[in-house]
Order: sequence, then C-alpha cells, then structure tokens
Amino acid sequence: METVEKECGALGGLFQAIVNDMKCSYPVWEDFSAKATKLHSQLRTTVLAAVAFLDAFQKVADMATNTRGATRDIGSALTRMCMRHRSIEAKLRQFTNALMESLITPLQDKIEDWKKTANQLDKDHAKEYKRSRHEIKKKSSDTMKLQKKARKGNSQQPNAVITINANTHKET
Amino acid sequence: METVEKECGALGGLFQAIVNDMKCSYPVWEDFSAKATKLHSQLRTTVLAAVAFLDAFQKVADMATNTRGATRDIGSALTRMCMRHRSIEAKLRQFTNALMESLITPLQDKIEDWKKTANQLDKDHAKEYKRSRHEIKKKSSDTMKLQKKARKGNSQQPNAVITINANTHKET
Repeated sequence: METVEKECGALGGLFQAIVNDMKCSYPVWEDFSAKATKLHSQLRTTVLAAVAFLDAFQKVADMATNTRGATRDIGSALTRMCMRHRSIEAKLRQFTNALMESLITPLQDKIEDWKKTANQLDKDHAKEYKRSRHEIKKKSSDTMKLQKKARKGNSQQPNAVITINANTHKET
Repeated sequence: METVEKECGALGGLFQAIVNDMKCSYPVWEDFSAKATKLHSQLRTTVLAAVAFLDAFQKVADMATNTRGATRDIGSALTRMCMRHRSIEAKLRQFTNALMESLITPLQDKIEDWKKTANQLDKDHAKEYKRSRHEIKKKSSDTMKLQKKARKGNSQQPNAVITINANTHKET
C-alpha cells in the first residue's frame, strides 16, 4: 500500500511540475509575441523607407538616362539595379506579412488557449488528485483494519483470511 | 567668319545645357541622400528590434530545451533556427553599415564638391565665353574693315592703271 501512495505522490508531483512549466512559459510567450509585433511594425516602416529610397534611386537613374552621351548607359544600368532592389523590397513585404499572419496572429490566439487550458488542467488535476488520494488513504486504512482483524483471527484460521486480504489488495 | 560665330554659339549653348542639367540634378541627389539616410536609421532600429525578437525566440527555445521528454528536441531545433536567424541579422547589420559608409557619407561629400564644381564651371565658362565672343567680334569687325579697305584700294588702282594705259596709248 505504501508504494502505491509513493507512486501517486511522484506522479502528482510530475504533473504539477509540468503544469508549473506551462504556467511559467506564459510570460515567455507573451514577451516573444510582443517582440514579434514590434519587429513587424519596424519592418513595415522599413519597407516604406525602402520604397521612398528606391523611388529616389529611380529618379537618379532617370536623370542619367535623359542626359546626352554615355551617361545614358549608366542610367540604364542604374534602372536595372533599381528593379532588382524592388524585388528585394517585395520579398521583405512578403516576409513582413507572413510574420504577422503566420506567427503573431495565430500565436496570440494560442496564448489565450494555452492559458485557459493550463489553468483548467491544473484545476481538474487538483480536484481529481485530492479525490484519488483520499480514496487511497481510505482504502489503505480499511486494509490495515482488515489486516489487524485477520491477524487476530490468524491463530484460528490463517489460510482463509490471507486469501481475502490478497483479493482486496488487488482491487485497490 | 559667320560660321565661326555660329559654331561658337552652338558650343556655348551645349555647355550651358550640360551645366544646367548638372545644377538641376542637385536636388535629386539631395533627395536621394535624404531617403538613404532615412532608410539607414530605419534599418538600424529594425536591427535592434530583430535582436530583441531573436533574444525572445532564444528564450522560448531554452524553455523547450529545459523541459522533460521529447520537447527537448523541439528546443534544440528552435535553437538551430535562431542561430540561422542571427546570421541573417548580422548580414542586415553589415548592409546597414555599408549603406552609411559606402553610400551616404561619400555621396554627401561629393554633393558639396558637385555643387562647387558646377558653379565654378559655369562661372569660368561664362567669363571665358564672353571674352572669346568679344575677341571673335573684334576680329570679325577688323576683318570687315580690312576687306572694305582692300575693296576701296582695289577700285582706285585699276583706274590708275587704265589712265596709265591711256597715257601710253596716247604716247604711241
């Protein structure tokens, strides 16, 4: 009976540790989400700055293209360069959107779920654990009583009582 | 003489057009430099936000690594991912520095030079052009005078010759 109580305690402790980990992780997730949101807004303003930069760059290229002589070649090279930069800008925009849509929004939804689930698990476990522990204790004391009774009657009819004891053990 | 004056005017006009282009390009360069500076400062704050984001990400990974069971594997995978992101962050930092050191700073130095050089060229050209034009006009009028003189002398001499001829006729 003692080993059952020990095991029960160990399992209960393990569960508690895991639930505590889950609860402790909450601020970490919160922090992660806040930092991601900040990064997202930073990236958005960076994209705007990049667009303005590339527009100015294009103006320089156009100016070179509209001149006489060999500067025209420089202008077309600059235009090509500007177009490549624009594709980078498009990628950055994609990444920024993905960060919001695939990381921050789902994460924030999940954080709430996570918090609720962890609390519910903790509550359910506490109730169930208390009930189980109480049951075990009751059965344990019942067994003790029966064992005492059996020992008393042992001198009279040892074999019969022992088999009964074994049965009650198995049931608990 | 007229063709020389025409050529001089055309060349002067071409020069003026180029110098005007140079002067007009000044605000375009200025705008480009301003946009680049803005992009640079945006990128710097973005790098800071990325660092904070990656620190929070690393915390999530550490949390996963420190748990019991298979979540540990997720933790190590997240740590690897975080390290790759850090290399991207390093590249972004490099790019930001390059933008400042190799584009904005030299460009701003050059803009001042550009402005000075364009103004100096314009001034020198105006002076030189005026002088040359004046010289050409003077030489042109000198030539005209000489031509008139030559024409005058031309009309007297043939008569003299004729009278001489007449005299000789009479003598014979």
